[in-house]
Amino acid sequence: MPKRRAVETAAIRFDIVDSSSSLSAVTQTVAGIGGKIRALATVRRIEGDPPVAEIELEVEGVTEEALVGALEGLADVRTVHLTRALDRVFGKRIIVVGGGAQVAQVALGAVSEADRHNLRGERISVDTIPLVGEEHIAAAVRAVADLPRARLLVLAGSIMGGDISVAAEELRAVGIPIIALNMVGSITDHVDLVVSDPVQAGTMAVMAVAETATFDLERQRGRRY
Amino acid sequence: MPKRRAVETAAIRFDIVDSSSSLSAVTQTVAGIGGKIRALATVRRIEGDPPVAEIELEVEGVTEEALVGALEGLADVRTVHLTRALDRVFGKRIIVVGGGAQVAQVALGAVSEADRHNLRGERISVDTIPLVGEEHIAAAVRAVADLPRARLLVLAGSIMGGDISVAAEELRAVGIPIIALNMVGSITDHVDLVVSDPVQAGTMAVMAVAETATFDLERQRGRRY
Repeated sequence: MPKRRAVETAAIRFDIVDSSSSLSAVTQTVAGIGGKIRALATVRRIEGDPPVAEIELEVEGVTEEALVGALEGLADVRTVHLTRALDRVFGKRIIVVGGGAQVAQVALGAVSEADRHNLRGERISVDTIPLVGEEHIAAAVRAVADLPRARLLVLAGSIMGGDISVAAEELRAVGIPIIALNMVGSITDHVDLVVSDPVQAGTMAVMAVAETATFDLERQRGRRY
Repeated sequence: MPKRRAVETAAIRFDIVDSSSSLSAVTQTVAGIGGKIRALATVRRIEGDPPVAEIELEVEGVTEEALVGALEGLADVRTVHLTRALDRVFGKRIIVVGGGAQVAQVALGAVSEADRHNLRGERISVDTIPLVGEEHIAAAVRAVADLPRARLLVLAGSIMGGDISVAAEELRAVGIPIIALNMVGSITDHVDLVVSDPVQAGTMAVMAVAETATFDLERQRGRRY
């Protein structure tokens, strides 16, 4: 898992005329001052003539002043605000997917444990979605690979297997470990760690990604608790 | 709040040589085929020579085939996978910020309620971070405006005010409503709804954003339960 951040990231939010060419001008401008775009998201759109999009942009390798200066020079760019890179505010993300009852209990353990680490300077978020059905859960497992700052997945349910197990191996292959509750189905053979108690599963998930904890998932790989 | 999605979104993940110019070439190519970038995130980086970045890209107004075809033509782009736009998988986001004990109870209510709506075709995630201190909580409240798909914030704590109340008004001004627990401090005068029971606060938060619920936050504005 990449844990290091080599260079500071400048983060800004701005309004821009919502067209293909206007955003392309932004990215060309960023490249022109030597910045690498780490994140760009349309956070909301404002109907009007012309329609305007509100964009959150994080750029590595340039100062905030340089970034603001360059973007304010573009004709289509409106109000520019400095913001903070989301990893400095919300930090690493534990993702919890599965049945509502179990997801809630895993979240209880994970939030309580994250509280203890965040008090000591860590930044760990606990992000959850209750879902039902092999197809939807497998899609969510695969999509965790696309979530910025996702560091670990907890699968919380009573029965999972089939395509969910396939998706689990795909996710682990891109470097995101998985903790599963002890449950029916093949999934428990396709994760890094199996934990029976959902509160403990949430706690261990946070410990596994916290710099402030001494818990090494590598040394627990394949075990069941 | 913008709830509609006018046009389909194509989503892909690809590896690309990690340089300023390579990403700029991507955005120019997307603009060239008439697409509007809705999200672009570096989900991970692979050290090497040259270093490679794994990018998640969501583009509106083009087909997946056209997007893949255009990007595969770029020299710096490596493996291209089709993915699914994150809003189709993780949907609307309820954000819960505050003290660990209260955040966990709000999450319990929200996850249980989201489960009931997601079973009927909704997609609602419950994303949480336990934090302490006026400065950190105010920063998180402001940063909710930068989170893609964030629809409502729940402030869960025992005492909040000062700059958190200022940040709450800023967030509401961009169209994201706030539910707060009943607590000490000025915050309860700067939110849309005050709820004493954290489980009910989480439940109401989900009801307020679910298309499958009949709960209108507008009609509850300023009330306390």
